[in-house]
This record gives sequence, structure tokens and C-alpha cells, in this order.
Amino acid sequence: MEERVLSVQSHVAFGYVGGKAAAFPLQCLGYDVDLVNTVNFSNHAGYGRSGGSKTSAAELDSIFEAMEYNELLRPTRLLTGYIPDAEALTAVSRLAENLRKKKPELIYLLDPVMGDAGRLYVAADVVPVYRNLLPHSTIITPNWFEVEILTEISLTSVSALRRALIKLHKDFGVPNVAISSIPLTPWLSESLPSVIRPPADSESEHLLCITSSSISNDVQPSEVHAQCVPLLPGYFSGVGDLFSSLVLAHYKPSNASSLSSVFPPSQMPFSDAVSQALTKTHAVLSKTFEYSGLLPEEERSVTDDEKDAVEPIRKVRRMRGRELRLVQSIDIIRGDFGNSMRRLQSWSGFWEH
Amino acid sequence: MEERVLSVQSHVAFGYVGGKAAAFPLQCLGYDVDLVNTVNFSNHAGYGRSGGSKTSAAELDSIFEAMEYNELLRPTRLLTGYIPDAEALTAVSRLAENLRKKKPELIYLLDPVMGDAGRLYVAADVVPVYRNLLPHSTIITPNWFEVEILTEISLTSVSALRRALIKLHKDFGVPNVAISSIPLTPWLSESLPSVIRPPADSESEHLLCITSSSISNDVQPSEVHAQCVPLLPGYFSGVGDLFSSLVLAHYKPSNASSLSSVFPPSQMPFSDAVSQALTKTHAVLSKTFEYSGLLPEEERSVTDDEKDAVEPIRKVRRMRGRELRLVQSIDIIRGDFGNSMRRLQSWSGFWEH
Repeated sequence: MEERVLSVQSHVAFGYVGGKAAAFPLQCLGYDVDLVNTVNFSNHAGYGRSGGSKTSAAELDSIFEAMEYNELLRPTRLLTGYIPDAEALTAVSRLAENLRKKKPELIYLLDPVMGDAGRLYVAADVVPVYRNLLPHSTIITPNWFEVEILTEISLTSVSALRRALIKLHKDFGVPNVAISSIPLTPWLSESLPSVIRPPADSESEHLLCITSSSISNDVQPSEVHAQCVPLLPGYFSGVGDLFSSLVLAHYKPSNASSLSSVFPPSQMPFSDAVSQALTKTHAVLSKTFEYSGLLPEEERSVTDDEKDAVEPIRKVRRMRGRELRLVQSIDIIRGDFGNSMRRLQSWSGFWEH
Repeated sequence: MEERVLSVQSHVAFGYVGGKAAAFPLQCLGYDVDLVNTVNFSNHAGYGRSGGSKTSAAELDSIFEAMEYNELLRPTRLLTGYIPDAEALTAVSRLAENLRKKKPELIYLLDPVMGDAGRLYVAADVVPVYRNLLPHSTIITPNWFEVEILTEISLTSVSALRRALIKLHKDFGVPNVAISSIPLTPWLSESLPSVIRPPADSESEHLLCITSSSISNDVQPSEVHAQCVPLLPGYFSGVGDLFSSLVLAHYKPSNASSLSSVFPPSQMPFSDAVSQALTKTHAVLSKTFEYSGLLPEEERSVTDDEKDAVEPIRKVRRMRGRELRLVQSIDIIRGDFGNSMRRLQSWSGFWEH
């Protein structure tokens, strides 16, 4: 069976975020990838300055219409990422609804890229458009902050997390949720089963990844899995985009969808795909981290807002030194990690309270 | 040594021409690729209708300027392809001159995409801009028609071909020329040495590829190599773009540049790179040809201008069925063909007359 992904996200000439972070891994894993660019920039926003322009909603419509006319809208999977304004996102929503209607089995990974660590980096009117789009998704990959934005629930306790997941699954109809790069706050760490919890006193050196797949039986709202990965210091761009593309690439529901009730929880197709994506993303990031540590000192200056303001090239060089080592990671991307996979574990007891 | 290609050419959402045909092979062969899109279209022009827009010269300048400001203009190689108007090409020319000045050892593959088989598909004022740009190139990959346009010499005899190559090497200062997909006219076939000439009566079933590298000694103006490949019927888009990217990827002058006078002619780095590119391009095309032959009948209708005019979807479906099988060819792209390589042979006696 031929698989084809339509990817709608940002394009940068230099470096690896958005479509540039997603296309190569998907292609290496055998997918044809149709690439619609929501922006055409020289580089990602973290550099502080960039050239190029956003793609207008009218232009996106013109591309989608020509593809429809030419019978080229035939992806088996849809991937959407950074879409900077509500009008453009509305054009993408119409596309997603159209594709979903024509092909009910379409696998749609929606990455609701809106912000991080308390800061929104899209226009505020994008948020309700994403909420309306959620019911058309198969998988969403929000970060912690984006879960809070979408659900309007502040994630400060396990019961709040439970309510947020119920809202995503039941109110918004999302089948699969993967939340990665979650800082391990004390309440979160304490609530983890011991098989997932990192060694005592090392919580702050780890990030948590959680998946939740809604299931048809009525005992509990969803199957929840989790795993910790070591935190690598510093900020790297495009990691979420790489992760989402790998989740989509490794998600193979066809073998198992009808068997989900009999499947052992540790081998659910979704948590399995996320385990692969987590393992490979962490391996690419580790490679990038090692590389950046060997650069000349001026390319690995630490973040210092005061010094950066005086000398903007400091930040620019730091960003450049932290671009993902994606092309150099082809063997990681195509690899089979076998027993060294960072496998997500069932979070037993998550729904008991 | 890290290698990085800056590729400036067209982008299409669906299918494989321009940057979409070039990036994946270069990335699979270990190059980081910076991608500047000269157009952002839904699909290539052969479909008859497309959505999206061209990138204006001002927008290209804005991208290049931001890259320069952020110290991101640091390719070791430059690749330029389809650039639809003179103003945009002028912006790219300034970039090429700037890069060449900063880095004299830059390897610049210039594909002067202007037309084919007697038909120009860029604005006529593009031609003189390309002529001015030629002295900055390391390699050019024109087709037969583009050689005629650039040199203003009609290629109807070996002596005309000699004059055209001298003009490219001496007047325009181009070190390396690769001309592929040349129809084997009788005069051309008859002039080939027997080691290159295809079997009698099969000339029309072959295409010729010629390379010419200027050399420093005074005995002859250049070293000329050639090879024939079987013709695959039908028109396939993006083949030239794939070929150029593979020529650039396999060109490794560092080992040999200082040794070119003592190197055996059959192992000149340029003809060797073109042999690799020719072999792999033909293998990808064969795979595509086989695939398209197995499609449902409506997706492999023969070209028929009358029927196509009445029913435009005929042409659209034919185009779709002939998109390069690029992602499926990852093993071809990364492969080592060893003894089954289509190796270009020295065209001994080319300069004797």
C-alpha cells in the first residue's frame, strides 16, 4: 500500500524546522510527501531577524484548489504544523474537512503549534479555529502549554490532567494525544508509577512524554502511557516538528485497529509509534547536542538576554550551532532500535482516584 | 569536511521537479541543503494548470539579505535551476557573485533552465543574464537546445559542437559542461567512436550524454567524454533537475584537481561524477517508467493533443502517473553501482579534424 503525506507547515531556507524538519524523515521512511509552505522564510524566528513572507490564505486556497482540480489531493495522511494566522488556518481547516469527508480513514496528525512555556507565538484568534479543527484529527501533539490553551484547564494536578484528557477525547473527539517534553514538576513525578519515575533527585534532569488513546470500553476513558527521557540543556528548534513527523511515520494502525481491545496495552499501535518517535528524536537531539558542544566558543555562548541585546550576533550564532543534525542522522531515522527503544509504559492506575 | 548546498530553484507541493527533485538526493548523500524557492506552485507546469505564485526579486533579496545578516550564507556549493524571470535571475546572479567572491573555491552548478526541443519557457530577457552568470559557474548542465541558445550556434555538425564548447569554455569561462538527453541524430552518431556508439539501427532508441572539461595544457581545448543510455518513451518531468543534483553530489574535485594532468582521462572527477549521475538518474527513471506502465489505463494515456484539448484531465492523469519514483529510489540514490555503472568514455579524436 502506497502512503502519501500532505504536510502543511512552515518553510525555512536554512535549517530544520517545520516542513524542513518533517519531510526528510518521512521520505527516508518511505512516504511521498506533498509540501505546502505556510511561510517562506530565510530561517526560524529564534534568530531574531528573518527575510521572506507568510503565505496568504488566498494563496493557500489557490494551491489547494489547483491540487483538487488536478486530482492531486490524494494523501493517505495529513500533517499540519505552524500556521501563523487565523485566516490561513481556516483555509487549512476547510482542506482537512474536505479530505476527511472524501477519505474517512485519513490519518490526520494535527500539531497545534501555538506557543510554549506560557508564551503564545500565534495570533490569539488562532485558538478557537484549532478547537473547531480538533474533531477532524486522528492524533494531536500539543506541548504542555498548548494542552492548557486548548482545554482552558491549568495543569497543576493529576486530576486536572485527567480532566484535560477527558475534554480532548470526549468534547473535542481526539482519538490520540501525545504530549512530549513535559517538565517533571514534583506533583507529576510523585504521581508516576515507579516503572516510569526517574531515580530520586534526578527529576529535574528528565522530561516526560505522555500518550493517551481513547478506547471503546467503558471502564476508563483512555489508555495512558508514559516515559521519561534525559533532558539536554539548551533550546533546540524544530524538535517538536521532527517528533510529530516521526510519530506520524511510525503510526501503523492497520494491523491492530480492530484488535485494540485484545492488544496488550504495552503494544498499542499509538504508544508504539510514539516510543519510536521519542527514541529517534532523542537520538537526533543527542547527536545535535554533542555536535554543538564541539563548536568554537562563539557559536555556543549561553543564553544571556543582556549580552544578546548588546550583541545580537551572539544569539544568531548560538541558534546556528543548534540546528538539528538531521541529514547526518539518516541511520537513526531509518534504524531499528530493538531493545534499546525508549518504550512508553502503561501508566497503570492513572484513572483511579 | 562538512558540505552544504544552497539550492535556488522552483518548489512544487505535489511531485518532483526543481528543489523537490534535488533536495532529497543531496540529503541522502550527506549534504545539508538550504532551499530557496523561486516559485511556490501546487504542481509543475506540464499539468496545464497550477496554483500558487512566483517569488519576486524583492522577496528573494529579502531572504538572501537576512541569510547574510545572520551569517547563514555559508554553502560550500551552490545549485541554481529554474528561475522564471530576468529580475529574479539578476537577484540570484548578485548572490552567486557575492558567494564566489567570499569563497573562491565554491562549487557552483548552474543549470540554465530555459527551454527544451526548440521552445523557450522563460522570458527572453533571461538569456543574456545567464550569459553574464556563466563565468561564475563551476559546472553547467544545459540541454542541447540551451547550448544553442547560450552560444548562438546551431548544433548541426561536430565542428559546430566544437565551436560551441570552445565558446562555453573560453569565452564564457565555464570549466565543466554536461549535456544530457541528446537525441542521436545520424551525424552525431556517425562521429562517435565505436566504443560509445550504440549498435547499428538502434540509434533512435538511445540518448547521448556528453561532458567537456577544460584542461590547462594547450594540446586541445577540453577533455570530452560521452556515453549512450537507452531512451525510455514518454515525457518525464524533473529528470534534468535530478540529474543536476546528482552531478553536484558526486563531484569530488578535492582529491584530484591538482592532478588533472596526470589523471587517466577515464577517471577525471567530472566525468566520473556525471557517470554516477547518469547511472542513477537512468535507474530512477526506469523504475518510474515501469511503475507508470502498471497504472490503470486512464493514468497512462498516450500524448494526443487533440484528445487532451477536449478532455484536459487526460493529460493531468498522465503527468501524475509519470512523477518520479524518487522516495522509492533511496537505495538507488545511495547505492554503489560498481561495475554496472554507465561509465562515460573518452571521446578520443573529438578535437582532431
